[in-house]
Amino acid sequence: MSFPKSVRIVEVGPRDGLQNEAAVATSDKIALIDMLTAAGHSYIESGAFVSPKWVPQMADSAQVFADISRKAGVTYAALTPNLKGYEAAKAAGATEVAIFGAASEAFSQKNINCSIAESLERFAPVVEAAKADGIKVRGYVSCVVGCPYQGDVAPTEVALVAKALLEMGCYEISLGDTIGVGTPDKVNAMLDAVLSMVPADKLAVHFHDTYGQALTNIYVALNRGITVIDSAVAGLGGCPYAAGASGNVATEDVVYLLNGLGISHGIDLTALAKAGWFITDKLGKQPSSKVGLALKAKCTQTKA
Amino acid sequence: MSFPKSVRIVEVGPRDGLQNEAAVATSDKIALIDMLTAAGHSYIESGAFVSPKWVPQMADSAQVFADISRKAGVTYAALTPNLKGYEAAKAAGATEVAIFGAASEAFSQKNINCSIAESLERFAPVVEAAKADGIKVRGYVSCVVGCPYQGDVAPTEVALVAKALLEMGCYEISLGDTIGVGTPDKVNAMLDAVLSMVPADKLAVHFHDTYGQALTNIYVALNRGITVIDSAVAGLGGCPYAAGASGNVATEDVVYLLNGLGISHGIDLTALAKAGWFITDKLGKQPSSKVGLALKAKCTQTKA
Repeated sequence: MSFPKSVRIVEVGPRDGLQNEAAVATSDKIALIDMLTAAGHSYIESGAFVSPKWVPQMADSAQVFADISRKAGVTYAALTPNLKGYEAAKAAGATEVAIFGAASEAFSQKNINCSIAESLERFAPVVEAAKADGIKVRGYVSCVVGCPYQGDVAPTEVALVAKALLEMGCYEISLGDTIGVGTPDKVNAMLDAVLSMVPADKLAVHFHDTYGQALTNIYVALNRGITVIDSAVAGLGGCPYAAGASGNVATEDVVYLLNGLGISHGIDLTALAKAGWFITDKLGKQPSSKVGLALKAKCTQTKA
Repeated sequence: MSFPKSVRIVEVGPRDGLQNEAAVATSDKIALIDMLTAAGHSYIESGAFVSPKWVPQMADSAQVFADISRKAGVTYAALTPNLKGYEAAKAAGATEVAIFGAASEAFSQKNINCSIAESLERFAPVVEAAKADGIKVRGYVSCVVGCPYQGDVAPTEVALVAKALLEMGCYEISLGDTIGVGTPDKVNAMLDAVLSMVPADKLAVHFHDTYGQALTNIYVALNRGITVIDSAVAGLGGCPYAAGASGNVATEDVVYLLNGLGISHGIDLTALAKAGWFITDKLGKQPSSKVGLALKAKCTQTKA
């Protein structure tokens, strides 16, 4: 087994996490992002410029971007489905933007109402505009090991969409197990296909923890040379396909694994856990992070 | 990476799990064990014959053993700290018994009030009596990658205690990360030491999920040739050293991993998840198993 010396964590809690939670106050989102910045994050996906009709939780993204306390060198990114969203993200001062395609035709049709090929055509003007503005674009591929509508997804399909996004101009492709059905065998098969077309240093992994497999899959991906990991503080974000199920892999649990493996990441675990307690307190629930829960338990009990 | 073709799951929910939960009715324990038998479990740790002063949750173990519906070929085991406990377990009809030593001197003193060497001396008569009765004895080693009192535990200490229990007559040694602090590097270092003294086919792993690392550690152990995994339905059992933290790794999540890897185990996941919903409902809480939560969510929602 060989592992990278350092990784970059892409914190998606304020966007991918909170867009699947009950609405929280804009001021709480801002406080959360500021706490994540203070904890040492170098990349925080901070909002989305999408239709408030579809994602009301992200309707205040412009305000969020306006009022966060930015730290030099930290990326504050926004999800942008189209040129209108891109322009709004740019106006709000997003450091970079992200577009999202699916590896599953059924999911693409249900989620964004067009084929995979059509979605790539729609994203092209966003990438072009961003290039002209000197703004970097990250590409997501969803359903990389399974789809809620069609079931299995062929690894080659994932590889082709990842390659198309890279060739379109995305600097990094995040491979998303949107419904958290991956296990190491499936993840390895998917990565075999993708790595034959896209180099490891252009890839990130984005695992949801619906079935508790996310951290093991991250361990597998690290061993394949992937050095960028998407995760959400407190494991924010449920599963839109199974209400009550778990959301994104928790950043705290990822950090605990990385600390054990001696892989550097720049994040202070205690400060991160406190950010998780803050936002889950606002949401009226417990952290979905086991590390967050354990550290909270230790802080609130009298004896060691 | 190479993995075994099949594994045996040792279900510890009714004992290690429930001894760290609020008390449940004896009839509910019996119903739980019967559901686990029906789900296909071949080994269920069903109770403990310990002082009810120290572990009141296990005071009804004799009744539990008397009233469960046994299936031929299934092991219904009991924890027995001493000869008195052993005689009670035998009288109750436990299929086999388990003794428990620690790899940490500090933990041994705090937990059972004697040194590791003294604890081994105390267990010897239990093993002798069981041998005379033709009853198999399983040995636990706790704190194999960390101790709540002394911190680090030397891998060699773990190996020496495991070897001593094996030589005393235990047929299998379960290596327990009692406080769930293990990560793959620590687990591999511990297994390096243990495997140099005890063959893999005499070992089991018993990971608590306090910091969310248990399943990844199981993945690592499987790759080291370990074929027996301890786990608890619904992730029962909190952490006595951090109230509110997670307990044993959830059997459902282990089964999901094994299914993905194509490793056989004999357990029906849906029936197992239902047993988890049953007992957590009695405890008035949600399953700590992510698979349990996800399947429950799918069952209770109207759309796929």
